[in-house]
Amino acid sequence: MLILGIDPGTAVTGYGVVRAGPTPSLVECGVIRTKAEWPLPRRLKDIAEGVRELLARHRPQAMAVESAFYAKNVRTTLVLGHARGVILLAGEEAGVEIHEYPPAEIKKAVVGTGAATKVQVQLMIAQHLRLKSPPQPNDAADGVAAALTCAMRLGMQRALARARMVTR
Amino acid sequence: MLILGIDPGTAVTGYGVVRAGPTPSLVECGVIRTKAEWPLPRRLKDIAEGVRELLARHRPQAMAVESAFYAKNVRTTLVLGHARGVILLAGEEAGVEIHEYPPAEIKKAVVGTGAATKVQVQLMIAQHLRLKSPPQPNDAADGVAAALTCAMRLGMQRALARARMVTR
Repeated sequence: MLILGIDPGTAVTGYGVVRAGPTPSLVECGVIRTKAEWPLPRRLKDIAEGVRELLARHRPQAMAVESAFYAKNVRTTLVLGHARGVILLAGEEAGVEIHEYPPAEIKKAVVGTGAATKVQVQLMIAQHLRLKSPPQPNDAADGVAAALTCAMRLGMQRALARARMVTR
Repeated sequence: MLILGIDPGTAVTGYGVVRAGPTPSLVECGVIRTKAEWPLPRRLKDIAEGVRELLARHRPQAMAVESAFYAKNVRTTLVLGHARGVILLAGEEAGVEIHEYPPAEIKKAVVGTGAATKVQVQLMIAQHLRLKSPPQPNDAADGVAAALTCAMRLGMQRALARARMVTR
């Protein structure tokens, strides 16, 4: 089962494709960059096209999106909402399950504590996925972390479901 | 020249189609409603499909979108950003000019003062467009107001351009 993880951003949207299973593995990761000098509608189109391309090429069963933290700057929060909107739309139109995880939940799933640092998250991603070094750039790592969180959560749900069947 | 005006909202997106010219006229107005019990991605899809349908049916040359006010509630601002994102994307993908106007600019264009009340805006819309009563519901009127603002601004720019040619 493939999971596409996304860390939304207007300038840089990070993504990671993870194959879920007993030993999850990284299929691909990267970033969708948009040009700062372009108007917002054009940047949103580039983000939407990038995400649609990933959905079409990998045909993941689920999309995991980092949910927005409420930035201190309200304008930043609003603009981030625009990027999230077109990403969620792309997922919905591709018919994939959409899961949203707040940053603290991703940190907790990957590192074990919601207060983990960026560096801790990156090191633990590498360990979980048996990579020699954390995915680069950082925004790609955040997308991978979202996908990994989803893989771990779904894996745990299945294990629980199996345990319930055995104990019945 | 047709202009599609949009007042974005996650629950209710108002729209109005105005024919620009010396005496602008209302072609159609209404609202795109989404169900509160549906998850956000599904609601965004309904908004996107509604706007795309309007763009395909009317083939406007321009889209005028009320730009976001920064709600006191940051969550509200963020969710509104999602709706605006998919609306701007629909406009960009249809290849129309996109104009954004803050609420105060729309009030100033329609009523003459940025501090106008909702009721004043509605009455002036009816007067500008020679309607017997203001467009209903209110969210539709806000979409019409955005389209009318765009029609008036573009009309003024053309008049100025003509005046400049004459005085050259």
